[in-house]
Amino acid sequence: MCQLLGMNANVPTDICFSFEGFHHRGGRTDHHRDGWGVAFFEGPGVRLFIDSRATIESPIADFVRKYPIHSLNVIAHIRRATRGPVALVNTHPFMRELWGRYWVFAHNGTLEAFEPRLEGRYRPVGQTDSEMAFCWVLENLRRLFPRGQPELSDLYEALQDAAREVSEFGVFNFLLSNGDYLFAHCSDHLAYIVRKAPFGEAHLVDEDVTVDFSALAGPDDRVSVIATRPLTDNEVWTTFRPGELKVFHNGEPVPM
Amino acid sequence: MCQLLGMNANVPTDICFSFEGFHHRGGRTDHHRDGWGVAFFEGPGVRLFIDSRATIESPIADFVRKYPIHSLNVIAHIRRATRGPVALVNTHPFMRELWGRYWVFAHNGTLEAFEPRLEGRYRPVGQTDSEMAFCWVLENLRRLFPRGQPELSDLYEALQDAAREVSEFGVFNFLLSNGDYLFAHCSDHLAYIVRKAPFGEAHLVDEDVTVDFSALAGPDDRVSVIATRPLTDNEVWTTFRPGELKVFHNGEPVPM
Repeated sequence: MCQLLGMNANVPTDICFSFEGFHHRGGRTDHHRDGWGVAFFEGPGVRLFIDSRATIESPIADFVRKYPIHSLNVIAHIRRATRGPVALVNTHPFMRELWGRYWVFAHNGTLEAFEPRLEGRYRPVGQTDSEMAFCWVLENLRRLFPRGQPELSDLYEALQDAAREVSEFGVFNFLLSNGDYLFAHCSDHLAYIVRKAPFGEAHLVDEDVTVDFSALAGPDDRVSVIATRPLTDNEVWTTFRPGELKVFHNGEPVPM
Repeated sequence: MCQLLGMNANVPTDICFSFEGFHHRGGRTDHHRDGWGVAFFEGPGVRLFIDSRATIESPIADFVRKYPIHSLNVIAHIRRATRGPVALVNTHPFMRELWGRYWVFAHNGTLEAFEPRLEGRYRPVGQTDSEMAFCWVLENLRRLFPRGQPELSDLYEALQDAAREVSEFGVFNFLLSNGDYLFAHCSDHLAYIVRKAPFGEAHLVDEDVTVDFSALAGPDDRVSVIATRPLTDNEVWTTFRPGELKVFHNGEPVPM
């Protein structure tokens, strides 16, 4: 299974601590050696780092781990290839433009025989079921809302419908963001935590590292972290229900 | 003026030597402190590094300079902001998908009052004249060839027409690649060199560094380097004519 990691915050926040544990799943504490990637939004702009090597062997992962890039929305992915060969072009996250904004997408799971007929507005460049699903979701959104981005409630509903439809073909855990909102959909494995005051200590599952957020975070900071499996073992993570779509904004889930 | 750097090769080649000189133009030997970026194709996949800081202050530029990424097509850009504020979203190169391939674009020059009506297939995310022109060029290509990428001669002719049209609004030096071909258009400043056997020594203009390509390159290697101004002072660079569009493939210009 691939690994997903997302972050949504109300102040620009680095993901170094979470990525520290997460990157070990790319070849050490888990068997995902088929590439990895991470996208950091900076306003509507995106820094996208992808590598078809395992994270633990990737000089780019090493760079990202040590260099604190501050962002409100981050999506990271470690790949275990099931559809499409190991190649840069098949490495998540994928990025496309819709309504004059960049959208970033990463998927965990495998879709069987998902071969929709696309109009051609978005075409996959690689061979993954994931990029195909991303193109199909964006095409759907564009057809439903040709003039531009709709209200959040309409966008949420359209994504919920799209996720339900794609899920009929298999496991469709995904993270999707346009830099404002981070959408997270669960088929079978996804959990999140909201960190806010009073902050405490957190200890990684994948490595013996502890961080004291009370020493790092301001009193009004709020950060949601979403991951395939909880990244820490001394905090309470909330497990998504199967079929659940959540949208995060300003560091917390938006009641929908 | 912004700085452009492109490379097209017949074997995967790193751009460390050229980037070594080039990156000094981002704040040291020239006054371009408003961000920089570089895209490396790996097959149809792209590694895109962008930073809104000056290259000489950018940890990402430092990483790219030291880490040899091998590629057949590279496009780099150092920005001096004329349209659109200094921001990640306004940093070249820009990337979009067309016909199931990623296309990467960087522009040097300023377009005055270039405000075409776009159909919406490609919308700028940032505020630059450059991204607007890129979207317009892609939209044009897609309208002319809706089914997929045409023969090279048709693609060349369409790009020549588009470049001529956009050039009426100002200076439109650009580099454009889909990972197979690298197109280079000159309004006023662009030069290139083809390095092939017998290889010799090259000495940078921007820094006292010499490299002996005969010790590094194989007998059949062929590499074209395209830049706003020649990067070396002991080799013969060919200057583009104003209005000239060249297409590079397998390390050399294709006769058109």
